Amino acid sequence: MSAKPLSPSRSAGLVCGSLRAGPSNSISDVDGITVGHCTLDKGSLRTGFTAILPHQGNLFRDKPVAAVEVINGFGKSAGLVQVDELGTLETPILLTNTFGVGTGVNVLIRRAVSENPEIGRSTGTVNPVVLECNDGYLSDIQAMALSEEDAETALAAASPDFEQGSVGAGTGMSAFGFKGGIGTASRIFELDGRVFSLGALVLANFGRPGDLILPDGRRAHPKGERQGEERGSVIVVLATDVSLESRQLKRIARRAGAGLARLGAFYGNGSGDIALAFSTGRRLPHFGECDFIACDILKEGRIDVLFQAAAETTQEAVLNAMIAAPAMRGWRRSKRPSLADWLEENGRC
Amino acid sequence: MSAKPLSPSRSAGLVCGSLRAGPSNSISDVDGITVGHCTLDKGSLRTGFTAILPHQGNLFRDKPVAAVEVINGFGKSAGLVQVDELGTLETPILLTNTFGVGTGVNVLIRRAVSENPEIGRSTGTVNPVVLECNDGYLSDIQAMALSEEDAETALAAASPDFEQGSVGAGTGMSAFGFKGGIGTASRIFELDGRVFSLGALVLANFGRPGDLILPDGRRAHPKGERQGEERGSVIVVLATDVSLESRQLKRIARRAGAGLARLGAFYGNGSGDIALAFSTGRRLPHFGECDFIACDILKEGRIDVLFQAAAETTQEAVLNAMIAAPAMRGWRRSKRPSLADWLEENGRC
Amino acid sequence: MSAKPLSPSRSAGLVCGSLRAGPSNSISDVDGITVGHCTLDKGSLRTGFTAILPHQGNLFRDKPVAAVEVINGFGKSAGLVQVDELGTLETPILLTNTFGVGTGVNVLIRRAVSENPEIGRSTGTVNPVVLECNDGYLSDIQAMALSEEDAETALAAASPDFEQGSVGAGTGMSAFGFKGGIGTASRIFELDGRVFSLGALVLANFGRPGDLILPDGRRAHPKGERQGEERGSVIVVLATDVSLESRQLKRIARRAGAGLARLGAFYGNGSGDIALAFSTGRRLPHFGECDFIACDILKEGRIDVLFQAAAETTQEAVLNAMIAAPAMRGWRRSKRPSLADWLEENGRC
Amino acid sequence: MSAKPLSPSRSAGLVCGSLRAGPSNSISDVDGITVGHCTLDKGSLRTGFTAILPHQGNLFRDKPVAAVEVINGFGKSAGLVQVDELGTLETPILLTNTFGVGTGVNVLIRRAVSENPEIGRSTGTVNPVVLECNDGYLSDIQAMALSEEDAETALAAASPDFEQGSVGAGTGMSAFGFKGGIGTASRIFELDGRVFSLGALVLANFGRPGDLILPDGRRAHPKGERQGEERGSVIVVLATDVSLESRQLKRIARRAGAGLARLGAFYGNGSGDIALAFSTGRRLPHFGECDFIACDILKEGRIDVLFQAAAETTQEAVLNAMIAAPAMRGWRRSKRPSLADWLEENGRC
Repeated sequence: MSAKPLSPSRSAGLVCGSLRAGPSNSISDVDGITVGHCTLDKGSLRTGFTAILPHQGNLFRDKPVAAVEVINGFGKSAGLVQVDELGTLETPILLTNTFGVGTGVNVLIRRAVSENPEIGRSTGTVNPVVLECNDGYLSDIQAMALSEEDAETALAAASPDFEQGSVGAGTGMSAFGFKGGIGTASRIFELDGRVFSLGALVLANFGRPGDLILPDGRRAHPKGERQGEERGSVIVVLATDVSLESRQLKRIARRAGAGLARLGAFYGNGSGDIALAFSTGRRLPHFGECDFIACDILKEGRIDVLFQAAAETTQEAVLNAMIAAPAMRGWRRSKRPSLADWLEENGRC
Repeated sequence: MSAKPLSPSRSAGLVCGSLRAGPSNSISDVDGITVGHCTLDKGSLRTGFTAILPHQGNLFRDKPVAAVEVINGFGKSAGLVQVDELGTLETPILLTNTFGVGTGVNVLIRRAVSENPEIGRSTGTVNPVVLECNDGYLSDIQAMALSEEDAETALAAASPDFEQGSVGAGTGMSAFGFKGGIGTASRIFELDGRVFSLGALVLANFGRPGDLILPDGRRAHPKGERQGEERGSVIVVLATDVSLESRQLKRIARRAGAGLARLGAFYGNGSGDIALAFSTGRRLPHFGECDFIACDILKEGRIDVLFQAAAETTQEAVLNAMIAAPAMRGWRRSKRPSLADWLEENGRC
Repeated sequence: MSAKPLSPSRSAGLVCGSLRAGPSNSISDVDGITVGHCTLDKGSLRTGFTAILPHQGNLFRDKPVAAVEVINGFGKSAGLVQVDELGTLETPILLTNTFGVGTGVNVLIRRAVSENPEIGRSTGTVNPVVLECNDGYLSDIQAMALSEEDAETALAAASPDFEQGSVGAGTGMSAFGFKGGIGTASRIFELDGRVFSLGALVLANFGRPGDLILPDGRRAHPKGERQGEERGSVIVVLATDVSLESRQLKRIARRAGAGLARLGAFYGNGSGDIALAFSTGRRLPHFGECDFIACDILKEGRIDVLFQAAAETTQEAVLNAMIAAPAMRGWRRSKRPSLADWLEENGRC
Repeated sequence: MSAKPLSPSRSAGLVCGSLRAGPSNSISDVDGITVGHCTLDKGSLRTGFTAILPHQGNLFRDKPVAAVEVINGFGKSAGLVQVDELGTLETPILLTNTFGVGTGVNVLIRRAVSENPEIGRSTGTVNPVVLECNDGYLSDIQAMALSEEDAETALAAASPDFEQGSVGAGTGMSAFGFKGGIGTASRIFELDGRVFSLGALVLANFGRPGDLILPDGRRAHPKGERQGEERGSVIVVLATDVSLESRQLKRIARRAGAGLARLGAFYGNGSGDIALAFSTGRRLPHFGECDFIACDILKEGRIDVLFQAAAETTQEAVLNAMIAAPAMRGWRRSKRPSLADWLEENGRC
């Protein structure tokens, strides 16, 4: 008996867009992708790392094509300049809090050197990619509590099955005055007779209380939260198995912004809104004798389904992050209600 | 008796966002801005020019600060490269169909030379700005029927009071399978105790049938229109009297994309989606002895209200364009229903 | 008897860089490329059109991959936004004076429609690419004297053999206080055992008197010319038969700036310095049933030879333009000496 | 007796450009700027940190306007995305080796939090700027030997008087097959009757052996070095006391590329070439009640002198770095000759 793909938002009756979701409705519907968390939830800390492995081989030797779209650059992510220039990823992607970036960078360097002793010696260096949001409301970010071991734990935990909500880097995040966190979603579609997929994983920590628009048109305002200045951020990681060039992936990443806007966001000044997209369907070797590599390229006129999938999965992944995350009490009397509870209280449209 | 500012969408019970509309709910709420149309609606032609004058002085000598955001660059607009580099406008803005750009360019050059005989002689040349959408569905675009006189007519007609809907450049445009066209909206807000405004004028010719989301959450699908490839475009012109630098205007222009996405757009591959923003509150002289100019600069932390206004006015201006435009029959049996009729038939939410 | 490839600069003993020049030392060493001029040199006019045809087929149906680098955006070129987004060319490239852009745009549209009646009807519109410099010093640019016939003449004249110096769009141009114009150069190199080429064609109208640095280290200052504000521009068109993606072509186009800087330029404020690069080795079909196209992609680690070739050919093409152009008297007692005469008088290093 | 400003390159008879050098021919000619080094030169290590303090106050509360130009983005620098979006600096700038970035990031965060306990609590977070080159040829970069204390030592050592050559981050760097390192230069000029300055500080680690062009036109090829793939990088930090907006500083930063090209560079694929420019003449407060700030803005038509100064100081600063650095033996039998010795042996032109 084949059930329809579900998700926290679909279980709550909220459907984003019209494309078909993948079998797990997860970024891991793109074959080879795994995700792992390390969660710190003790004392004044609600924080962590989330690791995304684009494939299970040696990423430095076999680089997925990638691109970055800076929707709003009030952010401190590392590694974006090189992705923009060369159009490739060469490490896993780490998500964490704003002050965990330096530690994440060091771990990714050590990991790459350990797997590729040529790095920094007979070949060039390596470009670690660490993306971040500020969880300073629910967690003591000044403590800089995340260790290199924590990042390694997240990397080691990577699996196609992973939790959503208040886990890993999402542990202390907030969105639209509710609890935020990690969410995912996917879409599938056909090209040249074959089925492809596009998945999103978000670290949702953006949006002012009162601005959230649900797919059914309702506004969801958390009780007692006043609208204030935005100090959040959102990271959107998009993955697909379609063979694309970096320019095309950048166009796709830009459509993450459409998904965020449908939720009511306007990319507030203080929100570092970054989308990174990569393709497992095109990988470039670091070494090798040939000057040219044969590859397929998607015709530009066929790209709309990927644009639509990027917008839909971004929108759904944020809702999934929020609905999967229970209400939380953080440090210094901070607290965030859960969108799941709001939906329970307010029923369906 | 002070009536609330109205608009085609507000009359239909549709309100975009939460900021207060300006007195005319029009881009001309920004003091000094005028708009004029020249409409060609005969035989196989449904096309025209719309002119926007940022102020009533000599634009070449007194340049408004400006910026461009290319949301999706499948477009043929002229003049954007220099706006991006120098951050100023020095001619009126002309809107027209894709094949009217060359003619518009020539008219703006002649007009600037006529007002400033130094151009191309004792001083540099001038950068004409002409923005476009493809009205080839309802009109015979291959005819290249627009003349220099038509552009001059639009410029001469400029006034703070101007029509919306199927007029000027908007005459033959379509949106979401409905009739599109020219629309406008504005918002007002306070900074340092003074009231400022931000207005949008759109040339709406984008969106696939079935994708339109109304502010009340409903989807509006024109009867009998099938969803196809997007071949439209949308131009968003944003204006404000807040003194801003070009970098800030570019950030504001980017938020036009949030307004479009709330309507259901995902910036389709074939849609040239361009936003241009300018400030009448900061103008830079072409000539003059001093090396420095004194000006005010908005603190970045106060910019969110302009971001929100950009998203809201873009969204509302598109709806205004659509609701103000009656159903149209074009050449070769083409036709577009009106969103106004759909709203009539489908009632309020 | 195979002579070494020559050029105006090589005949004068000036060699730029170390790579080997192609057989004609011309952009037409890239197979299929042709160039044509239409020159207006009468009365107060020293101006014209130069046309570059990237290949001899239907450009709209068979689009060369392309990219643009805006080195300094004080310019009025048309068509760059879409090249940047989609990474393809679909018309010939026209070079002309700043006020000839509108006319050039109209001609390229008519030509594309005539060859492809689907344009603007059953398929989208077309993106004309017209690049420009200001020849207002030697010619009466306000006259707007160039006609659509002039552009068609240049297109019809296209041939692998074409003149350099004061011809076509280069007729009234100036550089470093000397006479400027049209110049070209090429380099050849091996990849995977096959010989490839990269060629440049420049429209040189930039540089302050006294700033020119020759490849032998000398500064060439035209007698009696005072250093003033820069009001020129330079257009660099780079072509190669190497199969590249648009992102790689953009990186190559950026290296045109290195060639210009070696000549003493610093990309002055008033100089619109634009580089456009395209590949005849990768073409994308407009129509067709398949979603994917097979192609080769150059490994990024092999791209340095193309970077070097871009810098060297840009530098040499500018010198060729200047040396091929005799001294000229323009309108209103304007005149420009020839770099060829300066070299004659000042001998070799 | 007022001596002319000197520098390692001027002492060797090499003069870059024509503008007047500042009194110290150093970035610290821009009032308030200090620079400090921490050098690790022992065993297999030739590395370090260099710190640039844009002014002596609280940088987070009083942010210099800034901009970034990515000339070639094969680099791992941190903090550039936010500088690009917001146009301000809010920490000192640290220069170091590629694998020292994470450590530098952590130190700058701790320093900012210590000076501003509101960070990450009642106000947003902070954007640390750390720029890097790969010194893996002369030093064991895999050791990741730099500590947080080393970065603090460099910050504490900051002074208007500082060494050039193989010091701080420059300790293990190479350029054009010679020893590279840290270099500086400045230019002064008048605007509105007042004297202003622009200074450059470079971390020079780029250029293939044989490509170096001296200002007198000679090529300097280090004996016995073969031309290979570029794996270096160069960081250029430009500073001025002219009040500028971020867009203008970005244009100025782009001209660093002209200075590099005059030295023979073509921005090789593997070279991360980054220019960051800031103005001490315009600072934006983090806190404060007013929505607007009064400031002066340089007229765009007067910017050429800053463009020229950027190109000249970049070129000279690289030569100063190279000439100030003696020949070095590194780990694993690596060695680099000194350009000073080459000049000694080869005499003047």
